[in-house]
Amino acid sequence: MWIRRSRVAPLGQQLYDGIRHAILRGRLLPGARLPSSRELATREGVARNTVLRVFEQLLEEGYLVGRHGAGTFVAPELPDDLLALVGSSTRSVPTPGRPPRMSRRGRQLAALTPSWAPERPPLPYDFRYGRPSLPDFPLRTWRRLLAECTRDTSGSDLDYGEAAGHPGLREAIAGYLARSRAVRCRPEQVVVVHGSQQALALTTDVLLDPGDRVLVEEPGYAGATAAFRAAGVQIVVGRVGTEGLDLGTVDRRRLRGVRLVYVTPSHQFPTGVIMPLAQRLSLLRWAERTGAWIFEDDYDSEFRFRAPPVESLQGLDQHGTVVYAGTFSKVLFPALRIGYLVLPEPLVHTFTKSKALHDTGTAGLEQRVLERFIRAGHFERHLRRSRARNAVRRAVLLDQLSHHFGENIEISGGNAGLHVMLRLPGLAPAVEPILIERAAAAGVGIYSPAAFYQEPTHRDAAALMLGYASLSPERIQRGVARLAQAIGGLLAANGTVTPRRSSRPARTSSGRSSITK
Amino acid sequence: MWIRRSRVAPLGQQLYDGIRHAILRGRLLPGARLPSSRELATREGVARNTVLRVFEQLLEEGYLVGRHGAGTFVAPELPDDLLALVGSSTRSVPTPGRPPRMSRRGRQLAALTPSWAPERPPLPYDFRYGRPSLPDFPLRTWRRLLAECTRDTSGSDLDYGEAAGHPGLREAIAGYLARSRAVRCRPEQVVVVHGSQQALALTTDVLLDPGDRVLVEEPGYAGATAAFRAAGVQIVVGRVGTEGLDLGTVDRRRLRGVRLVYVTPSHQFPTGVIMPLAQRLSLLRWAERTGAWIFEDDYDSEFRFRAPPVESLQGLDQHGTVVYAGTFSKVLFPALRIGYLVLPEPLVHTFTKSKALHDTGTAGLEQRVLERFIRAGHFERHLRRSRARNAVRRAVLLDQLSHHFGENIEISGGNAGLHVMLRLPGLAPAVEPILIERAAAAGVGIYSPAAFYQEPTHRDAAALMLGYASLSPERIQRGVARLAQAIGGLLAANGTVTPRRSSRPARTSSGRSSITK
Repeated sequence: MWIRRSRVAPLGQQLYDGIRHAILRGRLLPGARLPSSRELATREGVARNTVLRVFEQLLEEGYLVGRHGAGTFVAPELPDDLLALVGSSTRSVPTPGRPPRMSRRGRQLAALTPSWAPERPPLPYDFRYGRPSLPDFPLRTWRRLLAECTRDTSGSDLDYGEAAGHPGLREAIAGYLARSRAVRCRPEQVVVVHGSQQALALTTDVLLDPGDRVLVEEPGYAGATAAFRAAGVQIVVGRVGTEGLDLGTVDRRRLRGVRLVYVTPSHQFPTGVIMPLAQRLSLLRWAERTGAWIFEDDYDSEFRFRAPPVESLQGLDQHGTVVYAGTFSKVLFPALRIGYLVLPEPLVHTFTKSKALHDTGTAGLEQRVLERFIRAGHFERHLRRSRARNAVRRAVLLDQLSHHFGENIEISGGNAGLHVMLRLPGLAPAVEPILIERAAAAGVGIYSPAAFYQEPTHRDAAALMLGYASLSPERIQRGVARLAQAIGGLLAANGTVTPRRSSRPARTSSGRSSITK
Repeated sequence: MWIRRSRVAPLGQQLYDGIRHAILRGRLLPGARLPSSRELATREGVARNTVLRVFEQLLEEGYLVGRHGAGTFVAPELPDDLLALVGSSTRSVPTPGRPPRMSRRGRQLAALTPSWAPERPPLPYDFRYGRPSLPDFPLRTWRRLLAECTRDTSGSDLDYGEAAGHPGLREAIAGYLARSRAVRCRPEQVVVVHGSQQALALTTDVLLDPGDRVLVEEPGYAGATAAFRAAGVQIVVGRVGTEGLDLGTVDRRRLRGVRLVYVTPSHQFPTGVIMPLAQRLSLLRWAERTGAWIFEDDYDSEFRFRAPPVESLQGLDQHGTVVYAGTFSKVLFPALRIGYLVLPEPLVHTFTKSKALHDTGTAGLEQRVLERFIRAGHFERHLRRSRARNAVRRAVLLDQLSHHFGENIEISGGNAGLHVMLRLPGLAPAVEPILIERAAAAGVGIYSPAAFYQEPTHRDAAALMLGYASLSPERIQRGVARLAQAIGGLLAANGTVTPRRSSRPARTSSGRSSITK
């Protein structure tokens, strides 16, 4: 009997499994004749049609053969290794027979430490960077638009969309960028991608060959460096000074062959430095002269606290050298996975094909929801509100840091973005793990920028990164107080820095902060 | 006056633009002194704080410099090419200054004809293949789950998720695959991807080096071949016979170096042939012996009409040689952009990193909706219903084809999937465009498989592809009648085939369709 009434599977499925297993386990030998369908139907207590269907399946799969007029038989020409499969379907996981043979890129990936995504469980006072304020997000409005869009969904909305993205969304993005970021583009130059990491992946595909040189910021965004390394390109580092990436720090010979430079001019990651206009223009001039591409990662430039955002490189570019990338991960929410590229016209077509080969296109529903969200003004309203809230958080953080640490720290990156970097002059980078551990013990999450350096010798002092968007002002206040309790002694006791003077504000590295009149 | 009351922009923005443009256009020369903030505020009729904010912004961007006690000046060290930017912000698009310098892959992409996505406007009777039946999709249920999931959205749902996919969805997929596809895997082996095209992109990344040999089916899925070509791998073709890919047709020497073989064993694309068990086992044995990987693209195997689906290669694999890919595009809807990889354990980690570098991870909401959809049984219920409906569509199509074309055509692929292929013996492939054009003139969409051949000489007769999932039975009936009117004469008049006999069914190429008793 192949059918057990106790099992929940349909009878046909049970019969199929039973006969198949009997063959695989050698209980039914090659050439053996099976009972007739009528006989089997009676024996197993199932409809004859069910038996016929099962026979047909097993015939098609080659387990059985039918000889006209003679009956149904176990296939005689079953390959030898069929019997080696005995019990295969009872094991749940295939055993690896050999170490996997991967590509060069695969081996590079395997060896990669994913340092760009710290994966510690959150602490009560977690100054984790790279996260927007999720409670600020107008979830109710988003839900309403989601409901509207799903209600309005028509057949064509469910079908494959354009690889470059939903035309309405591309238009809405182009409009927003023109209004707020001085990006000059037609909607056709916008390619919707799954976040800025995919923007990097497509750019690597289309513009870089293995062995090419790419200039990155030091320190810089590790997600970008990892993408470049995995593609087998050579990394050339340029130090970041108070005015952003400084080409003057790069060995002339190494600079010569550079095919692409990756920059975060609006809020350098992780230092937070803003690249001034003169530096932007000289970078553009250099790119134009050498034929290098500029990848402008404008990942969180929407947040700028003392004035409107600085003009983008893309908006200053006259020669189509800038590939501009932005993301909604930092201003809406990361799980949305929507970002965009703004491309020089001659690249649009090839990037679109690359996107098509990467994943055919971005999911439809979120694109339509986002389009409505932007068009109805919710996006810019959310930005304004969230900018105001983050300005309060930032002010509280800077004030509290100043109050508790005074001149023991130097703050950079406080004028834009959603995190600041604290430099601890006189303390070696090696103390960072101790500081982080002590802070964690007090429930405070702080982060080291060590992973963002290609070359540890480029560091002259310990530093810490503190993101603040996901914390309330009260929590920021208490968090910094706890942090001061936990590590303040280490900073002040170091001896190379003056003792804490709480009345004196912390210095900011932005420099030109005083204006005339 | 820099501010025009007629403009809608905020006054600060207007003032900023006005001063900046005056500098860029040379109306304010380097070194020129600006009016004091007080003076300017009076002159322009704005608050002094507004002027101060604008000054601060322009100072930070390097347009202005402040000299303590002396006032505010246009920066003297503005680079020369600043003046070259005159009028830049009035132009809407940067002019390309040179032909874009792309990577080898970029140039390959640029040259690629995207043959895998026919982009003709739909016809009234459009037998377009590769599309599910969107009206069959339980949109109401999906909407309800979407609403539930958005209502239940918590902060962590909005945050970055795991690169390999939402754990709950991976579990639901593993469960479904075990129940219905005899895929043996733990949830940890499932990596959620943006459709099967991304499954191919990740596989290419991790397993293939440029110059490696990849064996593809001839004819075969052009989206796969395009992905391989763009990665610079060498394509080796194996002919598809009545039992699927036939290794015996491949030149021994070319077969030797093959690193990966791409197959669609459950419903070969485009012929629809099903690979029998013996061929599956011999393919596995060959892969195990040579160390080649097998990429099993199970793109629409859920649809099988005369028995449960054939067991997957993955389920038969004992040595971890199979990378299994499936997609929800054909069973739910393409705009969802969710598919999955099932990986041998030793590859999971590296594929996850590759996914992280491709796009950080798949969007969150759809993953949660899909998890609920599967767990609540809606998915398998939808599959059953949609299988039944497609079985009716298929039966009508086969019946009508048989009725109108009789022995002038040979049908393959009618037992599975969502399209059939008609071979037109005696007609040269060159007539396909004529047939397609005539059919289109009668409002009927039919498709040539020409793009799926690497080598045109491999074709011995004209053929047509007809998808049927998106048409009602009535429309299929009328469509085939119209098709017969439009092209029937050409087929019958060819002379090498016998005249139409409508009482005789069209032959199907599946062969063993009669069973004993």
